[in-house]
Amino acid sequence: MNGIDSSPIRKAFELARSIENPINLSIGQPHFPCPPNIIEAMNQAAKDGKTAYTLTGGIPELKEAMAKKYISGNGISYAHPDRILSTSGISSALFLLFNALVNPGDECLVVSPYFLMYPAMLKFYGAKLLTVDESFGPADLEKFKTNKIKLIIFSNPSNPTGKVLSKEQLHALANLAEATGAFLISDEIYELFDYDKKFYSIGKDYEKTITLTGFSKTYNMTGLRLATILAEKEVIQALTTLQQYTVVCAPSITQWAGIEALKTDMSSYIQDYKEKRDFVYDSLKDHYSLEKSGGAFYFFLKIPIQDEEFIKKAVEKKLILVPGYIFCESKNFVRLSFATEWDNLKRGMTALQELASRL
Amino acid sequence: MNGIDSSPIRKAFELARSIENPINLSIGQPHFPCPPNIIEAMNQAAKDGKTAYTLTGGIPELKEAMAKKYISGNGISYAHPDRILSTSGISSALFLLFNALVNPGDECLVVSPYFLMYPAMLKFYGAKLLTVDESFGPADLEKFKTNKIKLIIFSNPSNPTGKVLSKEQLHALANLAEATGAFLISDEIYELFDYDKKFYSIGKDYEKTITLTGFSKTYNMTGLRLATILAEKEVIQALTTLQQYTVVCAPSITQWAGIEALKTDMSSYIQDYKEKRDFVYDSLKDHYSLEKSGGAFYFFLKIPIQDEEFIKKAVEKKLILVPGYIFCESKNFVRLSFATEWDNLKRGMTALQELASRL
Repeated sequence: MNGIDSSPIRKAFELARSIENPINLSIGQPHFPCPPNIIEAMNQAAKDGKTAYTLTGGIPELKEAMAKKYISGNGISYAHPDRILSTSGISSALFLLFNALVNPGDECLVVSPYFLMYPAMLKFYGAKLLTVDESFGPADLEKFKTNKIKLIIFSNPSNPTGKVLSKEQLHALANLAEATGAFLISDEIYELFDYDKKFYSIGKDYEKTITLTGFSKTYNMTGLRLATILAEKEVIQALTTLQQYTVVCAPSITQWAGIEALKTDMSSYIQDYKEKRDFVYDSLKDHYSLEKSGGAFYFFLKIPIQDEEFIKKAVEKKLILVPGYIFCESKNFVRLSFATEWDNLKRGMTALQELASRL
Repeated sequence: MNGIDSSPIRKAFELARSIENPINLSIGQPHFPCPPNIIEAMNQAAKDGKTAYTLTGGIPELKEAMAKKYISGNGISYAHPDRILSTSGISSALFLLFNALVNPGDECLVVSPYFLMYPAMLKFYGAKLLTVDESFGPADLEKFKTNKIKLIIFSNPSNPTGKVLSKEQLHALANLAEATGAFLISDEIYELFDYDKKFYSIGKDYEKTITLTGFSKTYNMTGLRLATILAEKEVIQALTTLQQYTVVCAPSITQWAGIEALKTDMSSYIQDYKEKRDFVYDSLKDHYSLEKSGGAFYFFLKIPIQDEEFIKKAVEKKLILVPGYIFCESKNFVRLSFATEWDNLKRGMTALQELASRL
């Protein structure tokens, strides 16, 4: 258990509670409420008595709705309810996958910077970590072709950088998976937060992909715990057995909420975040070296001093960020979330501009 | 994954769907609906926007309410919110415990017959299983005192037998835990289903006990996924870290429902089950060799032929039961659940009487 370090995010959370009127840009979830039609559908399910265990794999109605979504929304023509498992959020999906697939000593390739849960849990299950920077080209993957890789995992769009992987990069990862026999896991929890329409589901072209789709971020349902896994039937069967003996099923009423969520138009929320993305980029591009985020709701900001020190200085301005070292090997980044109100975001950009001029 | 056999319960479920008007006595959850005040509290939480992640360990309000419940309901005077973790049901609690505590080769003692998830998951995590029959006396545990036991686990009242362990038995288990350094895990999900007022929380006398308390069975919230773990602070901290990286938190709205559940008087439901327990015993005692169930809502029926064969004959009478071999080493038992309507139960007893006279 000791290899797991989650203290920086907890620290940010505690800081935000201790500061009066903080500028909290550390939050990894949307600032808008879960749309009321979703709440209503969930409450109706509860009133209708849908409080008992569901089938382990999820209610058929949700799996059918998800199959349609994968086909029409992601272009994954082979999607089918038998290939879908509903879980208690992406984290549960990851736990099922890692626990079922990873044996001690297995090599696992993670695209870096990474969602901090990947290496933490992979190490917990005894994996040997390999990383490749998200800026990789196909040639950079050649060196891994002689490895015996158990799985390849990435989030697309990325938490913490907002990077949307190109089709060429995704094909290169799929080729590597095919060549090494690795499972390819595409974590697409931020898929709707895709500001330049560049997001691509690699599952569309590579049928062995394990595609993870979350409801938490898109609809602000993080506390309701719902995600789905799309994978080959044999993988789904193994994960279903493991789910039966661990979490049993995703919450019943949340699954009904999920069906309603899929009918909900989120474009105005996404447009708002796109404007915020642009605003952050325009505010910081002359002060910091940074890549324009393409998705999710994060910027991964390069900073001229060590992250922990930078964060201390930011706190003096009531600004709360997450240090980059928990997402990659470098200590020269901080993660900034623009999932917040305009007021807050404007105050944050002013604080960051002042900080840059002082350093 | 291949060591896990859940097919008999799945088979029972499928059978029940394929038979017209079946007598289904295989169900492991209450037949009454979740009380409406609990549904209302949950729906209100959703309307109030409580759909985001909660603290990993659970909302403080639930932990405080549970601490009070442990003190006044179970007599566990040291209970405190810092020693409580809320999880997505007992199964999640078990997964957290086994995954955190069990290393390959560890010896784990399970009271038999057992809830089938215990040996399945313990074996999955590489444990070596030791068992002791639930009829044990203190002397029967002596032989384990030289073992290096990692954990001892039992459900009290028991699924599948309805056995309520005596205070003497519980003290003997606690003594063994103390002598061997094992973690003592008392799964009390059926605590309210205690028909002769004999249930005792061993946590009251042995402070190192890990006490598991579920909401699923008591309030028919199986699909809402809520349970709590009461343990020493260090254990809770480790489990909280693991939860943060796996299930993240119990469903937010379910936690609010849990607070309301604790205020709900379930005595009329329990009284109904007590009458059903008596009815089953009176109906079968002259036809089968059976122990009177003291708790939960099961009888573990000794049968004169092999369980799978018995179950086939029962199905001819539309009666659905669960074979005993998944709960113990013997093939001469079936599990019968009396969590059902009176009509159904009466039909079931008639069928079982007829079966006995034929065998």
